[in-house]
Amino acid sequence: MDEFTVTERTRAKRLFSRARYDRQTVYAILDAGLVCHIGYEIDGQPYVTPTAYWREGDKVYWHGSAASRMLRHQASGAPLCLTVSHLDGFVLARSGFHHSVNYRSVMILGEAKVVEVEADKIERMKVFIDGIFPGRWDELRPITAKEVKATTVLYIDLDEVSAKIRTGMPVDDEEDYQWPCWAGVVPVETRTGEPQPCPRLPAGIDPPAYLDKLRLG
Amino acid sequence: MDEFTVTERTRAKRLFSRARYDRQTVYAILDAGLVCHIGYEIDGQPYVTPTAYWREGDKVYWHGSAASRMLRHQASGAPLCLTVSHLDGFVLARSGFHHSVNYRSVMILGEAKVVEVEADKIERMKVFIDGIFPGRWDELRPITAKEVKATTVLYIDLDEVSAKIRTGMPVDDEEDYQWPCWAGVVPVETRTGEPQPCPRLPAGIDPPAYLDKLRLG
Repeated sequence: MDEFTVTERTRAKRLFSRARYDRQTVYAILDAGLVCHIGYEIDGQPYVTPTAYWREGDKVYWHGSAASRMLRHQASGAPLCLTVSHLDGFVLARSGFHHSVNYRSVMILGEAKVVEVEADKIERMKVFIDGIFPGRWDELRPITAKEVKATTVLYIDLDEVSAKIRTGMPVDDEEDYQWPCWAGVVPVETRTGEPQPCPRLPAGIDPPAYLDKLRLG
Repeated sequence: MDEFTVTERTRAKRLFSRARYDRQTVYAILDAGLVCHIGYEIDGQPYVTPTAYWREGDKVYWHGSAASRMLRHQASGAPLCLTVSHLDGFVLARSGFHHSVNYRSVMILGEAKVVEVEADKIERMKVFIDGIFPGRWDELRPITAKEVKATTVLYIDLDEVSAKIRTGMPVDDEEDYQWPCWAGVVPVETRTGEPQPCPRLPAGIDPPAYLDKLRLG
């Protein structure tokens, strides 16, 4: 199946041309990011928490402290929304009304499930670290049983999913194209900078090559 | 008042040292961003929608199509959460457990209110556009009554608010500092690129100077 099934909740209600439901698009948007925003409700109040995530196949994982109220709530099976968005540009039109932004986003609806088995939890964290910094997991001081226990690893199935994308130039009213103000796109990108070594790093340890290849957004 | 009142819902439950409640910090984090993530619930399902926002004093505004189901729901006075986050860096520790990210975030709880008066709506949109592109509003084809009517402008009061910040180097277990792997921070920044003019731009219109001064994140 190359397309996610559209449900009443994921069906675009407006701006249909921006909606995407194919796996390739959803995967690409998810894989370009590091931090998602998870929405959940406690006692009638919605909360939105920025959280690092990673994807494996049709599952999106996140993790945190087993002591976290947020994670305990999420782990209870309450309905969630996990949203990933990338801002790609300012879109400057001839009218305020047609100003916009270029972006890519994915919204996932569902419930969190808990990774219970210790070996699975460790493997998931290895995939997370190595997915960003290939080979780093085996360079690290090995994880301890206590650390595994203190960490909750959750996932949501990619099942009820939609993506939205806006690209390209402003779309103005036909009669406005000659209006004498600048119009176009100012691209926005996320970049990584020069690695800053920890002051307590022992002498002779150079930044690993994988830091040059970090890509985000 | 330079501090927001801490409530049971905004009080940090863990990682107390990362929590901030002072206006200066909250304002700075909000003013550095363009897109927030708004959480709300419809029929028992949380949704998180990326949305452009702007701040004026102790109000945070956003807007959208009056035809949007999301905005109509938000305008109904249902509880919301509006979160802004900036990713500032990867934090690479000697153990997987102490890996982290540097970030700044703000979470606002409350209900949306609607800007009802036409002149107010127009002024708010002018502030929004000019806040990003100083002077642009007066360069644009003037907004029409129909466009104002088709736009819903909402705001939330900065009242129940918290910020969280992580900065600086990894914090490892004392016995791990000599572990022979690279540790430190890889900074992450958001940058704007070279303006791309609309292909239908009349000849002789150069990119305005305010495009050189765009700052995000």
